[in-house]
Amino acid sequence: MAKRMRYLPRRPKSTKALNQAPGTVTYVGTKEQAETVLEVIDYNADHFERFNSKSPEDAFQFEAEDRTTWINIDGLSNTAEIEKVGKYYDLHPLIIEDIVNTNQRPKIDEYDDYFFIVAKMLYYREDGRLENEHISIVLGKNYVITFQEAGGDVFEGVRERLSKAKGRIRSRGADYLAYALLDAIVDNYFLVVEEMSDKIETMEENLIHAQPNDDTTLEIQELKRTMLRIRRAVNPLREVVSRLEKIDNELVQQQTINYIKDLYDHLIQVSENIEIYREMTWGLMDMYMTTISNKMNEVMKVLTIMASIFIPLTFLAGLYGMNFEYMPELHYKYSYPALLGIMFFLLMLMLYYFKKKRWM
Amino acid sequence: MAKRMRYLPRRPKSTKALNQAPGTVTYVGTKEQAETVLEVIDYNADHFERFNSKSPEDAFQFEAEDRTTWINIDGLSNTAEIEKVGKYYDLHPLIIEDIVNTNQRPKIDEYDDYFFIVAKMLYYREDGRLENEHISIVLGKNYVITFQEAGGDVFEGVRERLSKAKGRIRSRGADYLAYALLDAIVDNYFLVVEEMSDKIETMEENLIHAQPNDDTTLEIQELKRTMLRIRRAVNPLREVVSRLEKIDNELVQQQTINYIKDLYDHLIQVSENIEIYREMTWGLMDMYMTTISNKMNEVMKVLTIMASIFIPLTFLAGLYGMNFEYMPELHYKYSYPALLGIMFFLLMLMLYYFKKKRWM
Amino acid sequence: MAKRMRYLPRRPKSTKALNQAPGTVTYVGTKEQAETVLEVIDYNADHFERFNSKSPEDAFQFEAEDRTTWINIDGLSNTAEIEKVGKYYDLHPLIIEDIVNTNQRPKIDEYDDYFFIVAKMLYYREDGRLENEHISIVLGKNYVITFQEAGGDVFEGVRERLSKAKGRIRSRGADYLAYALLDAIVDNYFLVVEEMSDKIETMEENLIHAQPNDDTTLEIQELKRTMLRIRRAVNPLREVVSRLEKIDNELVQQQTINYIKDLYDHLIQVSENIEIYREMTWGLMDMYMTTISNKMNEVMKVLTIMASIFIPLTFLAGLYGMNFEYMPELHYKYSYPALLGIMFFLLMLMLYYFKKKRWM
Amino acid sequence: MAKRMRYLPRRPKSTKALNQAPGTVTYVGTKEQAETVLEVIDYNADHFERFNSKSPEDAFQFEAEDRTTWINIDGLSNTAEIEKVGKYYDLHPLIIEDIVNTNQRPKIDEYDDYFFIVAKMLYYREDGRLENEHISIVLGKNYVITFQEAGGDVFEGVRERLSKAKGRIRSRGADYLAYALLDAIVDNYFLVVEEMSDKIETMEENLIHAQPNDDTTLEIQELKRTMLRIRRAVNPLREVVSRLEKIDNELVQQQTINYIKDLYDHLIQVSENIEIYREMTWGLMDMYMTTISNKMNEVMKVLTIMASIFIPLTFLAGLYGMNFEYMPELHYKYSYPALLGIMFFLLMLMLYYFKKKRWM
Amino acid sequence: MAKRMRYLPRRPKSTKALNQAPGTVTYVGTKEQAETVLEVIDYNADHFERFNSKSPEDAFQFEAEDRTTWINIDGLSNTAEIEKVGKYYDLHPLIIEDIVNTNQRPKIDEYDDYFFIVAKMLYYREDGRLENEHISIVLGKNYVITFQEAGGDVFEGVRERLSKAKGRIRSRGADYLAYALLDAIVDNYFLVVEEMSDKIETMEENLIHAQPNDDTTLEIQELKRTMLRIRRAVNPLREVVSRLEKIDNELVQQQTINYIKDLYDHLIQVSENIEIYREMTWGLMDMYMTTISNKMNEVMKVLTIMASIFIPLTFLAGLYGMNFEYMPELHYKYSYPALLGIMFFLLMLMLYYFKKKRWM
Repeated sequence: MAKRMRYLPRRPKSTKALNQAPGTVTYVGTKEQAETVLEVIDYNADHFERFNSKSPEDAFQFEAEDRTTWINIDGLSNTAEIEKVGKYYDLHPLIIEDIVNTNQRPKIDEYDDYFFIVAKMLYYREDGRLENEHISIVLGKNYVITFQEAGGDVFEGVRERLSKAKGRIRSRGADYLAYALLDAIVDNYFLVVEEMSDKIETMEENLIHAQPNDDTTLEIQELKRTMLRIRRAVNPLREVVSRLEKIDNELVQQQTINYIKDLYDHLIQVSENIEIYREMTWGLMDMYMTTISNKMNEVMKVLTIMASIFIPLTFLAGLYGMNFEYMPELHYKYSYPALLGIMFFLLMLMLYYFKKKRWM
Repeated sequence: MAKRMRYLPRRPKSTKALNQAPGTVTYVGTKEQAETVLEVIDYNADHFERFNSKSPEDAFQFEAEDRTTWINIDGLSNTAEIEKVGKYYDLHPLIIEDIVNTNQRPKIDEYDDYFFIVAKMLYYREDGRLENEHISIVLGKNYVITFQEAGGDVFEGVRERLSKAKGRIRSRGADYLAYALLDAIVDNYFLVVEEMSDKIETMEENLIHAQPNDDTTLEIQELKRTMLRIRRAVNPLREVVSRLEKIDNELVQQQTINYIKDLYDHLIQVSENIEIYREMTWGLMDMYMTTISNKMNEVMKVLTIMASIFIPLTFLAGLYGMNFEYMPELHYKYSYPALLGIMFFLLMLMLYYFKKKRWM
Repeated sequence: MAKRMRYLPRRPKSTKALNQAPGTVTYVGTKEQAETVLEVIDYNADHFERFNSKSPEDAFQFEAEDRTTWINIDGLSNTAEIEKVGKYYDLHPLIIEDIVNTNQRPKIDEYDDYFFIVAKMLYYREDGRLENEHISIVLGKNYVITFQEAGGDVFEGVRERLSKAKGRIRSRGADYLAYALLDAIVDNYFLVVEEMSDKIETMEENLIHAQPNDDTTLEIQELKRTMLRIRRAVNPLREVVSRLEKIDNELVQQQTINYIKDLYDHLIQVSENIEIYREMTWGLMDMYMTTISNKMNEVMKVLTIMASIFIPLTFLAGLYGMNFEYMPELHYKYSYPALLGIMFFLLMLMLYYFKKKRWM
Repeated sequence: MAKRMRYLPRRPKSTKALNQAPGTVTYVGTKEQAETVLEVIDYNADHFERFNSKSPEDAFQFEAEDRTTWINIDGLSNTAEIEKVGKYYDLHPLIIEDIVNTNQRPKIDEYDDYFFIVAKMLYYREDGRLENEHISIVLGKNYVITFQEAGGDVFEGVRERLSKAKGRIRSRGADYLAYALLDAIVDNYFLVVEEMSDKIETMEENLIHAQPNDDTTLEIQELKRTMLRIRRAVNPLREVVSRLEKIDNELVQQQTINYIKDLYDHLIQVSENIEIYREMTWGLMDMYMTTISNKMNEVMKVLTIMASIFIPLTFLAGLYGMNFEYMPELHYKYSYPALLGIMFFLLMLMLYYFKKKRWM
Repeated sequence: MAKRMRYLPRRPKSTKALNQAPGTVTYVGTKEQAETVLEVIDYNADHFERFNSKSPEDAFQFEAEDRTTWINIDGLSNTAEIEKVGKYYDLHPLIIEDIVNTNQRPKIDEYDDYFFIVAKMLYYREDGRLENEHISIVLGKNYVITFQEAGGDVFEGVRERLSKAKGRIRSRGADYLAYALLDAIVDNYFLVVEEMSDKIETMEENLIHAQPNDDTTLEIQELKRTMLRIRRAVNPLREVVSRLEKIDNELVQQQTINYIKDLYDHLIQVSENIEIYREMTWGLMDMYMTTISNKMNEVMKVLTIMASIFIPLTFLAGLYGMNFEYMPELHYKYSYPALLGIMFFLLMLMLYYFKKKRWM
């Protein structure tokens, strides 16, 4: 069996974390990354600037009122850097905790000057591994800060559109950027869910036509577990987007609301698909069970046919192998060919019977 | 096994689409159609006119205030044409996106001058294939525009009634026309659901009386999948019609509301039927399992009867086939017929035992 | 297997009906009845009159203000007669459609001058067949009109009480009559549900003690289907009665409300019973499966015991049937009885082993 | 199998009852009791009086304003007596019907001068039989009337506390008495539910370690049925107590509300326990199925081991029992011991193989 | 099988308790502890004092207005001590009852001067046993009293932080302390749930790769039961925290609300994890069933292969062991080697057939 994918680290809070005060900033994920890398994109309709940095201070200058700044931070294990950013933007200690707490479920917190959104990126890396990455989005008046666990994300399309002078995204503000990022995340959910659908159908075919083995049940259980975890990543986001849609706050402009509604629609669709594939996954074990039983039926038929044909014939042969002195048949000339004939007749009779029963 | 029906294209958004801006008009369905065909019906109580065209411009002249115009557009793959219509009627970019996004679930969007409704047509083509077609309806003050993926639909009855001078439909406005179209869609749901019911009952009979084979489980899974997809097409429409019923807008006249209520009733009925057939489908795998077990039972009984009868007899024959010098029975004159008698008695005893156990 | 009961005609709307305008009056049930028969009961505390007629016109004279008139109409296939009645009482075209549309689910529609109620009568005919009959009730100021598919109903008790001078029903108005009719319908639900309970228990006993056969699974599926259909007939009525209870309209007098509350209570009870029996029905397939497996176990034990005892003995016999020249045992005088003794000992050993394992 | 417990009489309303008017007082339970027995307890903080009577008239004098009177009536089959009490206290005819209708589900009805509460007493009689008794409570200003189907109840503790001068119950009014009675009923639910828990665990042990037989499935079904019926008795009472808690009526004093809240808490706990044990019960059939399969596995292993060992050996013996003239091995001196050696080696090989496969 | 863990004492209320008045203080848990031990921590930003005592009176002096006092009481079986504390702080009799009633589900009661919170501590003791301990928290203006069943708890981290001068907890009031205690409880839920996840995965591996035995089903049932009981401990707490978050009372300061929101988030996460592991647990029995069937398949294949190969060969040997006088083959010189050749060919044929069928 392939190595099991794990989305959930075994210990959501280490024993050390258990004894710590709430608000303590401890990274609990598995994606250790030595350095924290910042990418800064600063733009408006006329202007576009982009560069990387390893020092948060570089980003802080990009706060021109008439421009939108997107600061993307990769790497959460260096909590000191995260705390520095947090302090600069006056983020609440609990927000900093949530940024590095990769077990935090998707949610939205409204503060006076910014919104704080937690989501989960699901995407496939080049090696085919499904990545479940914790992402936090801070949406302020003219800036968006995103915190990711590690390099590699689903935002390449957004970056590309930002770099083009005439896209709609360049002339809209930070709220539209945040929407575009969430939209990119949700688009990838479709891919992941469809990939699950493929896996389920492949499994169905394998269960019937290939030779299932002992690990098949483990693989089905793993599929179930994955479906449940994808669901857990996706479903809470519906609530987040629904609240974003209804928020009455100048941070979200009226013209962006329609796009958020559309995003909500997409999330509902993903959820519905997840439910369908989940029900299909639940049916796999039953399928496997019937397949095993069908195979056993086949085995039993072979045994029954072989035994039913040859056991009576063997009895007849044994009968005339007895050593009684007075067995008249033994001395007739045509006894032997007659018995062979009877045996052949019995064989035919049996074959006919099994054919009629459609066991062969 | 018959080729699997697929209602869901494997990739709801192509990788290319993933990197595109929201509102980008990309057809993602599977029904490529070279040309976009327009059908225009312009009518009031006294007037009826109908013609086809390949150019959207022809339709735009039909905007007489005292008439109702139904513009039906077949073929969504030519997105340029769709966008042209969209611009003429001042439709929101996200609406144009939804018109060609065949993965969009049923919904209703209210705009100032029109409603935008998405639904799914389920109907059987002549070749018995179940079609799941994306349809969008724009209901304006005196016009209805419908967008379909391809030619062939469930509206023939509506067209026929429109062509007759005295039908109620001719004297009502665009809202009644939109209702009539939705009603035609829902009527076809009944047909599809009943067809599913037939399939389930046929499957039940086959499971018991015919010879189920390896693909039977795949077919049951496919039935489940189809039920789930039909449900996904039908259930969201309930919400749409429910909102349409409660809308307080001059686009929907008071006298049409009663008809919409009736339509809602029908949708509830379809939903209830779907739930019943869904539960029945879920029972099929259990049925299959018991059938397999019953058949195995039968196989085992044959084996057990044959073995239980002949193994003891063969032992007896073997006993007197031994070559010991001192076996007095071998020399008695009536040993052989006596043994045959004993064997016959054992045979009868066994048969009686199995008869009593009702294994034969 | 007994003929399957069908509550649902295969085609809820014929293909012809599909192309018809909404509000078109088409009978879609299966109970064709040549003539429409009217029964009229006109009463108040002092007066009681009853007669049958084949002409709706006869009934229309019974409209004295101080009396209550119950017009019961049997036979819906003659839609012209139904439409005539509908026009006389000024019923909405959609109501007429619902009266003859036997697929209409239970509902209540409030109009200015009357309420329109749809329900399902479930009752057993003399031949033991479960009838699922569509019934419509129009409750006006001083009249009640009931439309039934065919003769035979559950209202005999109501008629009897009406004919007696001192019953409470004679001194109350049309609203109490409508309540009494619904109460009679609901009382019969109890009977039907209890009958289902009996069937389930009988099935349970049969599964264990009688010889289940191939059709058993079909019968279980049929039980499930029947439970689901009964539920569909009963549950929507709860909503109807709940709304009737809360209606603020002079058509329903305050003193009748208490009785309607009581009726609602009864409906809840029926629903709860249905849920219990439904869960029991769902358990039947599992029961059947364990029963089959138990029986197979028994078969396997017989085979195993027979084979385990005689196969080793046969081997021993075969051993001494070999024709080697140098087999010293063959020449000893007591070889044969010694071997018989060993065989008997092995037999006893085996029997003890199986007894200890409790396989016999 | 033990006699099945039945909580539900087969016919909730006899055919005779079906034709009767609503409000007709007919006892439908199974606990016929020739006489109706009254027990009267009249008390306040300083006073306590208690006696039995067979005539309701005796109780009516206990209506001193400054005392609380509890009239407990055993035996509902004599409906005339019940009606007499009903008329004296001016109870609504539907209440009288509900008192004797043992199928009535738990509910609360508020009237101007009193509350009417229906509940179900679940308790074990001395013979271990689970009793499901219908109980009605009328709570008036300074009196409580309870109607039970038969003698024997769960109120002994309440009576004892009433008889003691210093208990809290003596200084509180009728509302506290009604609470105390309901509390006693709910306390017994805990006992019953725990008893069910014991039964489930016993069944689990039996399924694995004892010899399950054909009736085991029936017993599991019976457990399910009992769980469902207990749930039906308990769950509606939650609603009753919840409404009692929220009632704004001088019949319930403010200081009693806290106790009612506590009672509600207990009911929620019972409900949660019921759900847990219900889920466990549902798992029993699966457990049984795996147990049967495990046993069959064991049987099959014995068969396979015996057959696999001896069938090849028997073949070898048969080979050298052939009567060909030219079989050189037959004449070698050490053929026989050599063959015995080979057979012993094969036997050891087989045993090793099965040991390694852990089939023995 | 390991000794079953029991979280629920068999009798939630002893028979004696059944007859007692509500509000009677009876300890019903299983953790008898001879003495009640008090631990008092008195602190503010500048001050920290901590000592143990066996007399509640010692604690009462710690009521300085500008300090926060945490009184932790271990041992509930000495109810007299508990009642003494209760009277001193003027706690309602029902609260005292709930403190010692270990069956009480998590809840929050608001009183004028304090809140009363019931929760369940789940944690692992050193011996690996899962402890389910009843804990009550009384939150007053400047004090928190906690009642535990026995020594040992999950609050060591809180005590440590309290002892450090610069922690946030020292400068906040009693409400923050109560939050910190609940937070410690919830943090342990994560540990327990993850431990369950490990157990489930271990069980999955064992089911497939190790040798499951008769007790495996019992263990799976036990896992289910444990999951259900953990759920019952955790889920009601969500409601408690949700109400705490919304409370408008000066006992809970505004700055603490954000922390409580965070706590609520964590509880939702635990709940979601519980649901996932619960679904996985429910799948275990199916997994086990397929594993058993797979193993049986393997057994059957061995039997079928052995029997199918040797039964025909034995028949052939038996054929030439017959004693007919006229069997020409017996006298040919190469009959014996020819037959051996045929037998070898048949053996190869069979092996090829089973290989092709992939049974070996």
